[in-house]
Amino acid sequence: MKRAELVSHIHERRSFLCVGLDPELSKLPPHLLDTADPVFEFNRQIIDATRDYCVAYKPNLAFFEAMGPSGWVSFERTVNHIGKSHFIIADAKRGDIGNTSRMYADAFYNRYGCDAVTVAPYMGEDSLSPFLETPEKWAVVLALTSNKGSDNFQRLQLSTNEPLWETVLRQTATWGTPENTMFVVGATHPDAFRRVREIVPDHFLLVPGVGAQGGDLAGTCRYGLNRETGLLINSSRGIIYADNSVHFAEKAAEEARKLQSEMAAFL
Amino acid sequence: MKRAELVSHIHERRSFLCVGLDPELSKLPPHLLDTADPVFEFNRQIIDATRDYCVAYKPNLAFFEAMGPSGWVSFERTVNHIGKSHFIIADAKRGDIGNTSRMYADAFYNRYGCDAVTVAPYMGEDSLSPFLETPEKWAVVLALTSNKGSDNFQRLQLSTNEPLWETVLRQTATWGTPENTMFVVGATHPDAFRRVREIVPDHFLLVPGVGAQGGDLAGTCRYGLNRETGLLINSSRGIIYADNSVHFAEKAAEEARKLQSEMAAFL
Repeated sequence: MKRAELVSHIHERRSFLCVGLDPELSKLPPHLLDTADPVFEFNRQIIDATRDYCVAYKPNLAFFEAMGPSGWVSFERTVNHIGKSHFIIADAKRGDIGNTSRMYADAFYNRYGCDAVTVAPYMGEDSLSPFLETPEKWAVVLALTSNKGSDNFQRLQLSTNEPLWETVLRQTATWGTPENTMFVVGATHPDAFRRVREIVPDHFLLVPGVGAQGGDLAGTCRYGLNRETGLLINSSRGIIYADNSVHFAEKAAEEARKLQSEMAAFL
Repeated sequence: MKRAELVSHIHERRSFLCVGLDPELSKLPPHLLDTADPVFEFNRQIIDATRDYCVAYKPNLAFFEAMGPSGWVSFERTVNHIGKSHFIIADAKRGDIGNTSRMYADAFYNRYGCDAVTVAPYMGEDSLSPFLETPEKWAVVLALTSNKGSDNFQRLQLSTNEPLWETVLRQTATWGTPENTMFVVGATHPDAFRRVREIVPDHFLLVPGVGAQGGDLAGTCRYGLNRETGLLINSSRGIIYADNSVHFAEKAAEEARKLQSEMAAFL
């Protein structure tokens, strides 16, 4: 998907919500477990219930992978069911030497038809560039993540007097463009968005950590929003596991609509 | 697999060779393409031909993933075919927030039965610890990788006057033990092994980059070997793609045997 199309979806739906799909068998509504493909059935109903309130979906590959080969069939059906109306981020945190990253990019972009893949920056430019070579496909690079462990390395001070995550942001931004690169910045660091926008004023940011992880929407928007919105705010568990009964999809829609209307106020 | 068992395989086979399995359809011997599962058939013949000369196999997940869901069936069959006699490293470069890393660990350790998973350190302790909680299962943490991009971030100088990769090594070594943690150090940095051994004298190192990537076995062994060997040297393309004819497996065996006899001289 082109950036302009993503921006136009944001304005039409008055939302910059990304719904994270983390389908864990032990958390699915029990009545779905008798269906032929419970993971897909769960995703399908969540997608149908929330698609008017969001612009992106982020399937988390760990949850599909843990199901074995059939999990990848559920993933494929999920991506196909989402269709072209939403930006699809394969949350896979990939990154390897060049010829291997190329295989990962090929899998997610061409075989499965996702728009974007989350990638880890530790291995440097030749590990990321294969994700930047396909028109309308995006690398979503980890910069400052939402978890506690982001303190261990991402916030280490370099000899240049800048934390590692800022250098990662500054450096990887030069390898792509705002048309093919986004960055992950956790909502659990609302103080950081001001600095992020000094370094990458134009890029889209994928922001996890709102909801279950305790991040704050208003704090994120205050400095994170830019002229073309520039934010995709993700919520996973807060939406998809809002309810565990036969009404789970309606409750998911309710949570998504709540976030959408909070977001509309910032647009 | 326990460390003691790995060490005993090394002494019995007089080898610390890891054979990397990167099965790319376009590179397979053409006569295999008519079989029902060419990727498995290729791996099966490579494994049968090389198992006496190596102690570990490292399937590279990108190459299986790129085949779609059926690639995961080929991966599963490959792991089962290797069996318990060899240390099996899922080269997947995973790493995510805790609940997600736990799903990845579960997939590779419990569902597929691998001994180890390669993991990227950028997200810190809570992203790695789920890979350190299962007895006899190992996290293989990226420290200083073999590719050119290792210069971009891994070699950045911190304010403590130490490059990032050394801090990653020092820090992550405290999260596990030499019984459940290994580190990736590329053979393309032979100068670095002396420093590595000052920081982690006892840990096993997984060393890619010998062969196609230009790394040097003798240089690696000079400082890399420790009392219990402490090295798994990986070769992928140099062995598995040594030949493209009906004799590919014999040629692979020949290349593996060459490396094994070079290694025996260092033991």
